[in-house]
Amino acid sequence: MTIKAIGYAASGKHAKLKPMQLERQDPLPNEVQIAVLYCGVCHSDIHQCENDWGNTVYPCMPGHEVVGRVVNKGSLVTKHAIGDLVGVGCMIDSCHECAPCLAGDEQYCEGPNSWLATYNGPMKQTKTGENMYGRDNTFGGYSDQLVVREDFVLKIPAALPIEAAAPILCAGVTTYSPMKHWGVKAGSKVGVVGFGGLGDMSVKIARAMGAQVTVFTRDKDKVAEAHRLGAKSVVEGDDKAYAALEGHFDFIISTVPEKHEVDPFIPLLRHDGVFVAVGALAPMPGWNHMNVIMGRKTIAGSLIGSITETQEVLDFCAEHRIAPDIQLIPIQEINEAYKYVKSGDVRFRYVIDAASLAEDKAA
Amino acid sequence: MTIKAIGYAASGKHAKLKPMQLERQDPLPNEVQIAVLYCGVCHSDIHQCENDWGNTVYPCMPGHEVVGRVVNKGSLVTKHAIGDLVGVGCMIDSCHECAPCLAGDEQYCEGPNSWLATYNGPMKQTKTGENMYGRDNTFGGYSDQLVVREDFVLKIPAALPIEAAAPILCAGVTTYSPMKHWGVKAGSKVGVVGFGGLGDMSVKIARAMGAQVTVFTRDKDKVAEAHRLGAKSVVEGDDKAYAALEGHFDFIISTVPEKHEVDPFIPLLRHDGVFVAVGALAPMPGWNHMNVIMGRKTIAGSLIGSITETQEVLDFCAEHRIAPDIQLIPIQEINEAYKYVKSGDVRFRYVIDAASLAEDKAA
Repeated sequence: MTIKAIGYAASGKHAKLKPMQLERQDPLPNEVQIAVLYCGVCHSDIHQCENDWGNTVYPCMPGHEVVGRVVNKGSLVTKHAIGDLVGVGCMIDSCHECAPCLAGDEQYCEGPNSWLATYNGPMKQTKTGENMYGRDNTFGGYSDQLVVREDFVLKIPAALPIEAAAPILCAGVTTYSPMKHWGVKAGSKVGVVGFGGLGDMSVKIARAMGAQVTVFTRDKDKVAEAHRLGAKSVVEGDDKAYAALEGHFDFIISTVPEKHEVDPFIPLLRHDGVFVAVGALAPMPGWNHMNVIMGRKTIAGSLIGSITETQEVLDFCAEHRIAPDIQLIPIQEINEAYKYVKSGDVRFRYVIDAASLAEDKAA
Repeated sequence: MTIKAIGYAASGKHAKLKPMQLERQDPLPNEVQIAVLYCGVCHSDIHQCENDWGNTVYPCMPGHEVVGRVVNKGSLVTKHAIGDLVGVGCMIDSCHECAPCLAGDEQYCEGPNSWLATYNGPMKQTKTGENMYGRDNTFGGYSDQLVVREDFVLKIPAALPIEAAAPILCAGVTTYSPMKHWGVKAGSKVGVVGFGGLGDMSVKIARAMGAQVTVFTRDKDKVAEAHRLGAKSVVEGDDKAYAALEGHFDFIISTVPEKHEVDPFIPLLRHDGVFVAVGALAPMPGWNHMNVIMGRKTIAGSLIGSITETQEVLDFCAEHRIAPDIQLIPIQEINEAYKYVKSGDVRFRYVIDAASLAEDKAA
């Protein structure tokens, strides 16, 4: 038996997202079927639809910030019950055998296909062209039904607003994971570069960890927003403000989703400081390494977070009563929303209300 | 009273090093006077003489790999006795008050003048133009006498060959410090880029730590040398060899003393791998950050090492019976030696035999 589902997908690099019928397989013994309630819109959805990374398989149905309810489950499922409110992030499987998987770092899976992405998976073909998952492409959460292996399904804490929980599954964990890995703690001085969906979560999580936060934004209109969240702010390119912050930061996270200058931020790090860019899957311009050597500084990257960390950040947000700033949209407005995200004008996260798919299903 | 001394110094950017008379101050209560026996020739001596970093104060008398004997000492000196074999590395003082100094990381001193360099110090002027050390320039170990605060003077273990101990004070600690900081250990897979004086020490120290070492060199003639030291080797630019090493290394240290490509080495790092460039005090070309993000990799820098680490690496080399490969020269050949170092043709370290200064003193 299969599950009839509907979603929105792009048929090619320049195509708009349109309704697409699809069939999902009934859950295997260790899988759950999820009726999607909400799905966040991530900048990487756009990069993937537009084949910016050269690995897109069409049709491309994005969505890796999914919240929904369990409506069916396989016979061996023990972690989730029918009716549970659950989440699905960027990964729906991994090899379970490599060193990172065994260490609980599935996001760095070194298996033959690496981890299986929620959409556009497998990310990586084996050398013989086969893939270990037996399917050529996965379709994500811009749809009404998902079927996922239970241990890649997260529990949504009751204290979180349901629709705002969705972006925690990517934007939240992508910022939480490096802050935890590099030891952000009470009293840390944290810089946040770029103030969109990931920037919003970076500020909230760092503040909840007890850090002093400064937001770097190119957009003067976002300054008041930064202050509202308890952060200081610097408008990018303000040389005087940069000079005053020399040697100030323990940790700077760049959430900018594309190529950008790193060099101006290095002098702002203190001794042993870390600059992590999590959004720029892209070639970056050069930097003056003298400033790195002089303080044993680090330029690093970080990719989403592990399943364990994803559950942690959901629980952390619930405990600290923080959630992404979002704007709900019907899925029929997705192409327009993409335009705003690309322009960088939005500070909040768009979240698709999956109830709107009923309209296309009926059509 | 002052001490009449002689050394070799450059009077300007394009000037050759020539004999120069100088006076050193008699040791203060906490200082020792050292009769120099040997001084290593570091590539940074050349950068400094040629004002490549824009901060050279002339006359520039280099030398920060100094081995000698204590010939006089102040009344409060307790660590060293007259006749002791001692060493002086890159630093002769620091502020002793900032967070890095208090943590034993003097090489990242955040005091008003940062640490005091053995030559061309103070490195950093205060904003008012003063410097806290009361002297405008320091003269290094290309001379017959040095006077240094006792706690910046190292003990040379008896098991080390005296003349080969000198390069451990910079080349040794510069490679030891980052290997220790980033946890190189038995079984680690270590890459060494550039195979001159620092590369030689990197291989020997990493091997003594129990690591598997691969040398990257642009010079086919150095391959046999790498093998002799127990390392594998890759000739830079050999795409096939690079492809075979994808995801292989825990740690890669670049000892290249100038601007160079980093990008080809990133894919060779495994998950959480670290690429540290210790020699390139220079603007570096761009890199593809996707490869950094995908494995939570690190591009970092590291500056020499602390006084504690300098003593550690001297003791480590003595314990493991390793020492730099050196060639002794009279100081009168220093300008010719610089030519060979600049061309990258030498794998060993030139070490000046300070006895040769007698010739100029007599003249």
